[in-house]
Amino acid sequence: MRATVMYGAGDVRIETVPDAHLVEPTDALVKVTHAAICGSDLWPYKSMEHSENGNRMGHEFVGTVEAIGADVKAIKVGDIVIAPFVWSDGTCIYCQEGLQTSCLHGGRWGGNHLDGGQGEAVRVPQADGTLIPLPRDIDNTLMPSLLTLSDVMSTGHHAALAAKVSSGKSVAVVGDGAVGLCGVIAARRLGAEQIILLGRHPDRIALAKEFGATDIVRERGEEAIDQVKKLTHGLGVHSVLECVGYEESMYTALNIARPGGAVGRVGVPQDETIPASRQTFFNNISIAGGPAPARAYIEELLPDVLNGKINPGRVFDRKIRLDQVPEGYRAMNERKAIKVLIEF
Amino acid sequence: MRATVMYGAGDVRIETVPDAHLVEPTDALVKVTHAAICGSDLWPYKSMEHSENGNRMGHEFVGTVEAIGADVKAIKVGDIVIAPFVWSDGTCIYCQEGLQTSCLHGGRWGGNHLDGGQGEAVRVPQADGTLIPLPRDIDNTLMPSLLTLSDVMSTGHHAALAAKVSSGKSVAVVGDGAVGLCGVIAARRLGAEQIILLGRHPDRIALAKEFGATDIVRERGEEAIDQVKKLTHGLGVHSVLECVGYEESMYTALNIARPGGAVGRVGVPQDETIPASRQTFFNNISIAGGPAPARAYIEELLPDVLNGKINPGRVFDRKIRLDQVPEGYRAMNERKAIKVLIEF
Repeated sequence: MRATVMYGAGDVRIETVPDAHLVEPTDALVKVTHAAICGSDLWPYKSMEHSENGNRMGHEFVGTVEAIGADVKAIKVGDIVIAPFVWSDGTCIYCQEGLQTSCLHGGRWGGNHLDGGQGEAVRVPQADGTLIPLPRDIDNTLMPSLLTLSDVMSTGHHAALAAKVSSGKSVAVVGDGAVGLCGVIAARRLGAEQIILLGRHPDRIALAKEFGATDIVRERGEEAIDQVKKLTHGLGVHSVLECVGYEESMYTALNIARPGGAVGRVGVPQDETIPASRQTFFNNISIAGGPAPARAYIEELLPDVLNGKINPGRVFDRKIRLDQVPEGYRAMNERKAIKVLIEF
Repeated sequence: MRATVMYGAGDVRIETVPDAHLVEPTDALVKVTHAAICGSDLWPYKSMEHSENGNRMGHEFVGTVEAIGADVKAIKVGDIVIAPFVWSDGTCIYCQEGLQTSCLHGGRWGGNHLDGGQGEAVRVPQADGTLIPLPRDIDNTLMPSLLTLSDVMSTGHHAALAAKVSSGKSVAVVGDGAVGLCGVIAARRLGAEQIILLGRHPDRIALAKEFGATDIVRERGEEAIDQVKKLTHGLGVHSVLECVGYEESMYTALNIARPGGAVGRVGVPQDETIPASRQTFFNNISIAGGPAPARAYIEELLPDVLNGKINPGRVFDRKIRLDQVPEGYRAMNERKAIKVLIEF
């Protein structure tokens, strides 16, 4: 079969790899119909050291179940399924608590030993704990939005929950990537009254406004902090969604939260320390977040996608075929695309 | 009147200062009956640069109202009152939200312009928003416990809430000072099942056990982390109360929290950064806390002190008179006393 392999920074190739197949009795074999390139795929795309064997890529996919192992009970051949961005057994103490990203027997897609979502088929470990089957008669136009539940929409929702967004709150979203845009959707969905997007790309700003952003701050650094304060009677916002991951963006996030406010961070931290510790302390600002337990959120978000209440699939502004994946990475890295959909 | 003035590291003096008196119509004049030396007073005691005029000290006191300004409505002459460790107007947006430590018109005791609690009398600004009157017929033996509500007991409670302690949870308390010990009381009061104290002073450990600590970890650093893991089936605890304030203790706190857990920090941070950002992120550990809004908590905790359910006054293991305050600082700084009570 054909799949995406990354060999180093900027070096993404489509190659023939061994066909995905069942190994464990808890596995399912999924033929991928829709996959995506993630903002987090750009971190290795920018910095990965050369690897002789390369890493299989992709952790967001929807597909059809082609085969199941003897122990798989909840998933059936022919099911159309969403795969969250990590796999999980569904039974360990963390899975029971809804934190499947910390599953004691789970793991990540791709790398050296497992298939990735950016390929024609995937062996799915712990299929019962991992996959979410969709209704049979699904409208094909919903597929992009359903695919976002595997990661970016669930991640935006996680940021909003970690930032304690609720009805009537003021919210700021740091970052106008696909996750930030989904954060706007999530904040709106949870009843935020004011949603300030910090971003500077016209196409993303336009989409954010459609999703519910009420104010845009194009400045960065101290100027951005001043602007958010001006928009919030000098106080700052109740909730900040940090959707970037740099220490600078976290500094901004912590400085635009008002006393007693909360920062929900979902941008993968690129540094070992969180800044502004003393100020954050004296203002009683909380910091939460991490990898989103998409497996837990999909059940909550799925009805709103199916009934059209939210349409996060609009973050895909480019559709490609598998052999165009290297161009897709390039376009996202150069910010010529917000997010790239791969159709098989 | 006589009051405590700090002129620099290790230089605390009892001096005659101008008598406290009403200035604003919202003021009350309180004759101090009980005050305390706080662990946070030790930070300047260790490091303050020499000051010509010195700083008035003390932010924990109970006393009797001797006079009130024309606009004071809720407080009456003769009331016995607790003063929280900051004063606040009780009406601003943050006070209304119960975060009086961020009051828009409030402030701290002592320093260059205001009286401190470690003196014979205090001018209390914003008396209605600040002071909590006690029942008239109070048992004098309860005074030490009532005094702890002004800071350390409320701070321990804040740590426990920030760390999301609730019934059945596993808890670790980093630090065996008066706040850590009150954190043990707070965790027990909120229903924690396992309470692990990280500390190494035999007298404090003994008191912690009486307060409800179920396990003691005397090690530090990586060894402490290993011990807590061993005591929690390798997982770590749900809730960590960070009651020290050093980056090292915060590192320990973040490393003994289990995935999805919470660190409530009340030790005043001595560094500008929070460590272990990436690990904290990948484990979805939340960080909250700051100065405790004691004004908001006193109403909740007061009944349990009055009915003897909690007895946080036991953290006072030395009672002195005002002229012995310099010795009190020395004893606390040398860890010869847990916490010092000043009786007038």
